[in-house]
Amino acid sequence: MVKVAVNGFGTIGKRVAEAVMKQDDMTLVGVTKTRPDYLALLASKLGLLYVPQDRLEKFQKAGIEVQGTLEELLEKVDVVVDATPGGVGKEYKPLYEKHGVKAIFQGGEKHEVAGFSFSTLCNYDEAKDKQFVRVVSCNTTGLLRLICTLRQNFKVKSVRATIVRRGADPHETKKGPIDAIVPNPVTLPSHHGIDVKTVVPDLDIQTTAVVVPTTLAHTHVLNIRFEEPVKREDVLEALRQAPRILVIPTELSGVKDSAKVIELARDVGRKRHDMYELVVYEESVAVEGNEMFLMQVVHQESIVTPENVDAIRAMFGLASKEESIRKTDTSLGIVRTFEELLEAGVKAFGK
Amino acid sequence: MVKVAVNGFGTIGKRVAEAVMKQDDMTLVGVTKTRPDYLALLASKLGLLYVPQDRLEKFQKAGIEVQGTLEELLEKVDVVVDATPGGVGKEYKPLYEKHGVKAIFQGGEKHEVAGFSFSTLCNYDEAKDKQFVRVVSCNTTGLLRLICTLRQNFKVKSVRATIVRRGADPHETKKGPIDAIVPNPVTLPSHHGIDVKTVVPDLDIQTTAVVVPTTLAHTHVLNIRFEEPVKREDVLEALRQAPRILVIPTELSGVKDSAKVIELARDVGRKRHDMYELVVYEESVAVEGNEMFLMQVVHQESIVTPENVDAIRAMFGLASKEESIRKTDTSLGIVRTFEELLEAGVKAFGK
Repeated sequence: MVKVAVNGFGTIGKRVAEAVMKQDDMTLVGVTKTRPDYLALLASKLGLLYVPQDRLEKFQKAGIEVQGTLEELLEKVDVVVDATPGGVGKEYKPLYEKHGVKAIFQGGEKHEVAGFSFSTLCNYDEAKDKQFVRVVSCNTTGLLRLICTLRQNFKVKSVRATIVRRGADPHETKKGPIDAIVPNPVTLPSHHGIDVKTVVPDLDIQTTAVVVPTTLAHTHVLNIRFEEPVKREDVLEALRQAPRILVIPTELSGVKDSAKVIELARDVGRKRHDMYELVVYEESVAVEGNEMFLMQVVHQESIVTPENVDAIRAMFGLASKEESIRKTDTSLGIVRTFEELLEAGVKAFGK
Repeated sequence: MVKVAVNGFGTIGKRVAEAVMKQDDMTLVGVTKTRPDYLALLASKLGLLYVPQDRLEKFQKAGIEVQGTLEELLEKVDVVVDATPGGVGKEYKPLYEKHGVKAIFQGGEKHEVAGFSFSTLCNYDEAKDKQFVRVVSCNTTGLLRLICTLRQNFKVKSVRATIVRRGADPHETKKGPIDAIVPNPVTLPSHHGIDVKTVVPDLDIQTTAVVVPTTLAHTHVLNIRFEEPVKREDVLEALRQAPRILVIPTELSGVKDSAKVIELARDVGRKRHDMYELVVYEESVAVEGNEMFLMQVVHQESIVTPENVDAIRAMFGLASKEESIRKTDTSLGIVRTFEELLEAGVKAFGK
């Protein structure tokens, strides 16, 4: 049993912590918070709460019981999932090194912080024995799931993508925009394509991005060229067979926008309306000759959860890629088809 | 066992249907949909789907199996919960009468459609033996829970409230506003106060309303006058003791806005992030002499769910008010204190 700490119990941390608890080959030892709030209360009641030394007094004042300090936690574990805010993970790296623990950083850190960027479907095996791994960001994870699936089945020549990003997560009341479409950045390209290349260096990819006033999910508009003509049905079949990609029949389901993707997640009983799968609108897949267009939805809060769990297995050589995907996806209820998702909804209904 | 149909399987219908399935003194026989979509697929897989006669062909074309027609469903049940769009319930009333079933309408219908408006904490006993009952709307339900709790404990002289309404539900992509604050209506007062009086006719209440560009919840800003001075602690204690009112310690929890109320619901594992409880911000309760201010949050999609279940029990005399509240709230996981909600979150964590 690999012993796991999660440093940071926010949007990513709380999800990864729960996911780790559901695995049979790893155990969650503790999580950390820097500020008292209801999540700290929850972690405290779970007997999982650790805080940085200099925050002990703050938590004591708030009357929230802690199990110990972050440093004490690091002494008890084999690996820490760093889910601190973007750019902060780097600051913690020396501490992880000091305690001799492996660490998994998130996509908010630069590639160089870990020196190895990870995406299950692309480079699972290469993570073996690494001390530091970085799970790429939500948008990059979404792009890579699609790209590595396509590359496994077809000769991909180039990828051009426009990333339409949500402005903030639902609970982030202080972030915007609330009435603008923001080029992100205005000097092309966006970092997403560059980030994809940390995992698939030989790919011809360029991305552009805008931020819009929504909270529920990102949407990618893709233009992909292949070396030779492909058939729409073959592409759809490859996507349907792939793990963690969910092709949704737009017309039949009525799931025609990102809000309805999330409503579907709510209705089938996903905790926190999490949609771990990359969602592809079936009717958006258009092929002519060797060129394809496609639109896909990325649930920014949850899509990297399974990849974090896989990264732990990959680093410790606990399981093959296929076995890790099977374990992670079964435990989280991740599906491969719309039919399976509905079946899950049937089972959860009224329970 | 009272046999229940739910006519309309949308925002309210799907929630009431699930809630009915969780009760031990009533049974869900079927639900209806007028249009094929993933909810229709879900209902079909559950063996619960009925459709109006003139829609049979549409569903056949979409390849969605149905159990029968709405009229056939009405022959099988004792009561129908009408969860059709606002104003449409009235059109169905003659059909319900024809089949001799009791019917529960929603707040989107006028009071006169049922002739009796219902809110559990205010007038449960009066619903006994009624053929038609109307469960008041989400905002009116929120106001009435507070008002009837206060009236039970104090002498309420007058209620003045500003209702800040969400513009649309999260999945309602075609509704607005998305960049305006809309007086609702501009000719005062709003209908909410008038609607409250269908349940508590002798109350001095005036309400005003604006609609804002959010989707997650409504917020009420209340100004209440009492006949004599009250103590803040006594009011808070009365609210804490009351069913379906949840006083949240704003500062300790970090739950300082409607988005964070919903994030809390997500984190404690509420399906669809439903918050059945009326949420009162503890720190917003301000008392001076006989005057009080208070802010409260109403989750528009789910708050009327428990009242619909109670209405069924009340109409058939299945249980006393206290017993119905106990059954409904236990089955739906409705809590009375923030502490209880956290405990529920602890139990659900990682499960």
